[in-house]
Amino acid sequence: MSAFSFDLHATDGRARTGVIHTPRGDIRTPAFMPVGTAGTVKAMYSGQVREAGADIILGNTYHLMLRPGAEQVHELGGLHTFANWPHPILTDSGGFQVMSLSRLRRMSEQGVTFQSHIDGSRHFLSPERSIEIQCLLGSDIQMQLDECTPFPATEQEAEVSMRLSLRWAKRSKDAFETQPHRTPGMALFGIVQGSVSERLRAESAKGLIDIGFDGYSIGGLAVGEGQAEMLRVLDFTTPVLPMDRPRYLMGVGTPDDLVESVARGVDMFDCVMPTRSGRHGQAFTRYGRVNFKNARHAADPRPLDAQSACPAARDYSRAYLHHLVRCEEMLGAMLVSWINIHYYQTLMAEMRAAIAAGAFAAFREKFKADQARGDIDPL
Amino acid sequence: MSAFSFDLHATDGRARTGVIHTPRGDIRTPAFMPVGTAGTVKAMYSGQVREAGADIILGNTYHLMLRPGAEQVHELGGLHTFANWPHPILTDSGGFQVMSLSRLRRMSEQGVTFQSHIDGSRHFLSPERSIEIQCLLGSDIQMQLDECTPFPATEQEAEVSMRLSLRWAKRSKDAFETQPHRTPGMALFGIVQGSVSERLRAESAKGLIDIGFDGYSIGGLAVGEGQAEMLRVLDFTTPVLPMDRPRYLMGVGTPDDLVESVARGVDMFDCVMPTRSGRHGQAFTRYGRVNFKNARHAADPRPLDAQSACPAARDYSRAYLHHLVRCEEMLGAMLVSWINIHYYQTLMAEMRAAIAAGAFAAFREKFKADQARGDIDPL
Repeated sequence: MSAFSFDLHATDGRARTGVIHTPRGDIRTPAFMPVGTAGTVKAMYSGQVREAGADIILGNTYHLMLRPGAEQVHELGGLHTFANWPHPILTDSGGFQVMSLSRLRRMSEQGVTFQSHIDGSRHFLSPERSIEIQCLLGSDIQMQLDECTPFPATEQEAEVSMRLSLRWAKRSKDAFETQPHRTPGMALFGIVQGSVSERLRAESAKGLIDIGFDGYSIGGLAVGEGQAEMLRVLDFTTPVLPMDRPRYLMGVGTPDDLVESVARGVDMFDCVMPTRSGRHGQAFTRYGRVNFKNARHAADPRPLDAQSACPAARDYSRAYLHHLVRCEEMLGAMLVSWINIHYYQTLMAEMRAAIAAGAFAAFREKFKADQARGDIDPL
Repeated sequence: MSAFSFDLHATDGRARTGVIHTPRGDIRTPAFMPVGTAGTVKAMYSGQVREAGADIILGNTYHLMLRPGAEQVHELGGLHTFANWPHPILTDSGGFQVMSLSRLRRMSEQGVTFQSHIDGSRHFLSPERSIEIQCLLGSDIQMQLDECTPFPATEQEAEVSMRLSLRWAKRSKDAFETQPHRTPGMALFGIVQGSVSERLRAESAKGLIDIGFDGYSIGGLAVGEGQAEMLRVLDFTTPVLPMDRPRYLMGVGTPDDLVESVARGVDMFDCVMPTRSGRHGQAFTRYGRVNFKNARHAADPRPLDAQSACPAARDYSRAYLHHLVRCEEMLGAMLVSWINIHYYQTLMAEMRAAIAAGAFAAFREKFKADQARGDIDPL
């Protein structure tokens, strides 16, 4: 199988479950993609990420173009070989991190010039170069270069920004079709922008659909607008996207964000939260968040979750996890990141099963009740 | 089996191989003990440490008495349960780190008062308290409290210091015999001091043998005297120790230190070097050290050692290891620490086999020749 395709297996309300087929393997949706910023899902072995249930990870074009460089990764056999992850990889366009991390940015119609936040070196990113980089990395699912509209923005600012992203969408598609490093089965997603405006989101979606993409990302959310506003935007954005293409909500989010977005028809997610929180000693569980920095865990001999299939949640006491986090031992970051990636994958698997069984509404209610407990099996 | 015992299986010159039996399992000697300072061999899962071939790890009394505290570890079921390491554990007495890490130390005949380097809290360590802590931790092999004589020291300073350690040896033994938290099969080692003086080392050893210990540690080395001087001291120290008790050279060392010390009749070692170097991107290999910070690895697609049984040495390119180290990614520390612990354990296994086969001299020569190559399979 060398083609990219999406099979929708079942819907339940607006929630969907299916499988994205890629030459490097299947991605069961709804899917959560752990973020492997610089070619590593932080503090985890790639085998652990796979065993936790991840079908796909995300790589950041911005980080990888700076270090070790796209051409370097290509010479080394591509990102899959480099990172010892033979399964599907999605890459972003680099645009978001250019705007949030780099220095001395200068935007133009052509693209963006910037200085590396690491060593001050000068770089240029255009729709064409972004696609070239993603093809050099060997990315299975690539993103058009877009401008992530800041929040808040006036309707006029959002419109100008969205139209730029649409023009870049067309250039990205054109570049993708002629990119010499592209291999069969690679996919390109367009990114819907338009801030919180229903009119602009619809116009963006229509423009992208006219160009034609393998999937549609929803960008410009989770940038400060709050969950209620984000869900309101999803309420009018997913309905204007084609049923037969995967939908990817970029950079989202908390477990609750995932459940509510799946309820609104989203298929794919990525977020640094499970690994970033893991490095700070905060665990995600069925029953809400547990902060291992808190002294109340210091004398607690119980594992975090004796029922978990994750060794990190099952084979170590809360007291030990507290101790490791307090002492800033790497093993603390390793174990809590593992717990979180495992929990996120378990949550996605439960959602897929619930949708397939036509029981998503009941799942969603139970999920909310469990999370509201605020701790797992309190003392 | 609930007793502690040592079976010497073979000797080859002065090199020895055997097995230390403990209630928690056997320790094949010569043995290298990875250092689990605060209840974790840094950047490694305990299962990896075991799979690399370690029969025993070391815990630091100083670190554990400060965080989480000996009584706390005891309440939580002991250090083995706490650290998810059900195999033998050796603990030091805490004295060495008190002298190297703590603040405002005051030594007396009775013991040492000091302030924690972490939070300034005041603590007291005596031979009796050190044994109590080690028993509370559940340590299988415990160390007497001693004074690690600084280097250089005058003969008179070394003598005064060694005599204090001898008096503390007697008090440690007395405390060990009556310590209520002691369980069957726990062992206590005396520590030979005496700086670089043959006369003082002999007097120290005789004094300890008169008291009677389950094993004999050699302290006060690897403190700046250099390898030649250290080996000279071993040359006259191991011969005055009983054949039928294990000998432990504390805080040593490089692979070459281990081979040369085994050649002089040492059975046990511990050192932070494999994990500390691992966190700094320096790998130990059959063919010498490899510094992954070096840019010459940036484009090298080969694994560190395609023949290694260690996945970290076998399944990742040198370019990737270089990238991780350069980006200060935790996975870099995780992989290179794993490589190093695995190499150290492999080296010990090779020495045990060579001694058993009466081929240690040939092994030692090949080891030296291999190490002198300076890199593994150079480009």
